[in-house]
Amino acid sequence: MRNIRLVLEYDGGGFHGWQAQSRPAVRTVQEEVEAVLGRVLRESVRLHVAGRTDVGVHARGQVANFRTGAELSLSRLARALAGLLPVDVSVRELAEVPPSFHARHSAVERRYLYRMLDGPSATWARRAWWPWARIDPAAMTAAFTPLLGEHDFRSFAGRMPGQEEDHGRCRVTRIEFTRWEAGVALVVHANRFLYHMVRNLVGTSIAITRGRLAAGAMAEILAAQDRRRAGPTAPPDGLSLEEVIYPPHCDPVGEWVDGWGKPRS
Amino acid sequence: MRNIRLVLEYDGGGFHGWQAQSRPAVRTVQEEVEAVLGRVLRESVRLHVAGRTDVGVHARGQVANFRTGAELSLSRLARALAGLLPVDVSVRELAEVPPSFHARHSAVERRYLYRMLDGPSATWARRAWWPWARIDPAAMTAAFTPLLGEHDFRSFAGRMPGQEEDHGRCRVTRIEFTRWEAGVALVVHANRFLYHMVRNLVGTSIAITRGRLAAGAMAEILAAQDRRRAGPTAPPDGLSLEEVIYPPHCDPVGEWVDGWGKPRS
Repeated sequence: MRNIRLVLEYDGGGFHGWQAQSRPAVRTVQEEVEAVLGRVLRESVRLHVAGRTDVGVHARGQVANFRTGAELSLSRLARALAGLLPVDVSVRELAEVPPSFHARHSAVERRYLYRMLDGPSATWARRAWWPWARIDPAAMTAAFTPLLGEHDFRSFAGRMPGQEEDHGRCRVTRIEFTRWEAGVALVVHANRFLYHMVRNLVGTSIAITRGRLAAGAMAEILAAQDRRRAGPTAPPDGLSLEEVIYPPHCDPVGEWVDGWGKPRS
Repeated sequence: MRNIRLVLEYDGGGFHGWQAQSRPAVRTVQEEVEAVLGRVLRESVRLHVAGRTDVGVHARGQVANFRTGAELSLSRLARALAGLLPVDVSVRELAEVPPSFHARHSAVERRYLYRMLDGPSATWARRAWWPWARIDPAAMTAAFTPLLGEHDFRSFAGRMPGQEEDHGRCRVTRIEFTRWEAGVALVVHANRFLYHMVRNLVGTSIAITRGRLAAGAMAEILAAQDRRRAGPTAPPDGLSLEEVIYPPHCDPVGEWVDGWGKPRS
């Protein structure tokens, strides 16, 4: 049995999130990718994923893995997937990884990006959010600095339907507002994220920009561990899972190819 | 009467090109923008445009102008447009320009970009083309260098239905293959473009990459003035009108605002 790691990209706009649903009318990334893998490998495939992204959330670097006894080379598998996957989900990399690798449990860091716009933009309308406000990236980065390090982030956590987080502690290693091509983006790196956490951080930054919350209040909001103290939840459109980081012992051990089946290293 | 210049952005995927059609079931950028302007200004508005982009072609910097007797400030007009335009067309700038300004006749240069991908990409599927081949940007730029300067580009011109170009001469001031975020793009600056010209240049670069045409043949293909000598037409998805250049005497003379109605200068 090989253990295969996929790096996936998807446009969340057409999906009801990552996770397979019992409702048949609902399209999810997991089901689309599992169906095509099953068709190519002629066996039933079950994906483990690094981050179960929510409805409408995008990914540039989602990671999943599955085990297979099929003999197909990864280069051929990549080309088959490139031909068969729908236009809004694609594979960026395929690699054989050690048997112990698990996309969720092995991950040590997730990197999210939330893109806001400087104004209405037809080009970015489906991939970024126009909040009818403009953030000052340097000032807002300073305001958010108290969030760096390990804290309980319950003040920024939504309640996931039917699921309870066992604890609210996250270790944030980077949190920064930075300019991108068409506006300001929030970059957050952390070992784990609570439900809606990035979107609630963005909503809070907009509340500060609009003067509804004080820029100096972040440490206090964090310490309160009370969701009602932070700002509203920003829409999913601007959010993307950019990258998932693994320790060196998870590095590829066999064939490693890009989305077109060409060797990587 | 003020003469107003708009810089427009649109996602061509949902439009049957720029130009208003007699067929009512067909959605065009011109009709959408004229309808919203008419509603806000309460008068019938007729747009002149720099480049009548084709079905599926995008724009980041399309330019249009119209004359109006309405008193509304451009700042308020920008905000009204931001609220009323559909999500796939937006205004980046509004400015009052000299009475003689005409979006098409005053333009001295158009800048097009054609984005190709390095592999399948869900993020870029609707805004770039994956040609199942990878161009070497330096080698292809060298191959295309004979096209710089003023030439007859009929070898790269499609036949526009129902219209005849009066001549095939274009002055190309930049033609270059360059890396972008997810692949290689062709950048072309010229005083004018023939029908399908950029898409035929891209198709030719792919034919060269696949070995169906010789890299050294560009001067000869150009000189032949025969469409059959160049490569096939690439799809519209990767093409975007990025910018239109005007001489200094066309600069704004009054209010000049961005897409959110904030002053520019």
